[in-house]
Amino acid sequence: METNVKSSETLSNLVITPEVLLEHWQAHRRLTRRAIEAFPEDDFYNFSIGGMRPFAKLTMEMIVLAAPGINGIVSGNWSSEKFPSDFSTPPPATKKEVLTLWDSVTEEINELWPQIPAGRFQENDLAFGMYEGTVQYMLFYMIENEVHHRGQCYVYLRALDIEPPAFWDRS
Amino acid sequence: METNVKSSETLSNLVITPEVLLEHWQAHRRLTRRAIEAFPEDDFYNFSIGGMRPFAKLTMEMIVLAAPGINGIVSGNWSSEKFPSDFSTPPPATKKEVLTLWDSVTEEINELWPQIPAGRFQENDLAFGMYEGTVQYMLFYMIENEVHHRGQCYVYLRALDIEPPAFWDRS
Repeated sequence: METNVKSSETLSNLVITPEVLLEHWQAHRRLTRRAIEAFPEDDFYNFSIGGMRPFAKLTMEMIVLAAPGINGIVSGNWSSEKFPSDFSTPPPATKKEVLTLWDSVTEEINELWPQIPAGRFQENDLAFGMYEGTVQYMLFYMIENEVHHRGQCYVYLRALDIEPPAFWDRS
Repeated sequence: METNVKSSETLSNLVITPEVLLEHWQAHRRLTRRAIEAFPEDDFYNFSIGGMRPFAKLTMEMIVLAAPGINGIVSGNWSSEKFPSDFSTPPPATKKEVLTLWDSVTEEINELWPQIPAGRFQENDLAFGMYEGTVQYMLFYMIENEVHHRGQCYVYLRALDIEPPAFWDRS
């Protein structure tokens, strides 16, 4: 795999450390978890606006990106034993089971993250066998895809007259 | 201002360079610009779901965060001569004028970005006189706040039977 690290990069350029980025991602995942919890069971699976996917399906997209994603980031093998990278994977039948899946992905990310090799974020790779770019780009894409779809679920919640969790609260 | 840079940080930890982060932010801003363009004039100002703000107001929030934001990132002075950091700033009367504002913020970001001092992303600051944290955190917050609200506008567009711009296309 090709690398984009330039020898001119120095400490003064430091934007974010891998440790802070892990916490940043998990903080977003905690917020998304609260958004899942905020949905009534039936609405989580069925409520939709403008023909868009219900939040259960959007949540599954996050899961089947994140679990194979962290494996790919670590090893270049963009798959997870537990979660096939298949966007058509249906959500489990209950919100409780979805949350259990969510939590197991959280653990998988925490376990694998320290194994990310030095220099890996700047390497080019073909993520999920499809998307070419740096590992940094893939990771930011996954996080922002979650923020994007969670933003959509905030509209679903408001339309259901439910107060969404505060966007700024990542506790 | 206190700094969080640790002497143990090395090149192998590099997640993203400032140059790539600037392009990443501007790529998001190009997508948001296309989302603004996708709205019919009247719906941009008035369409709403669940009592939420119309997209014109959400766009103004992005503008009054980004312009004072890039000034604060550079200098610690979280204000812009052109755009007061006041969330109640009303949008200009036409979408065309909003897009002109948007483009001038794009230029302001491009002009000021190279002036970000070395080590600045890891410094703690009180952004907008209110939010304490690293400059990195503030910047990510601004970008993700834009992604969050743009995700909401995708639901507005779908509800209006308008195809939103592709999320993955940042050209």
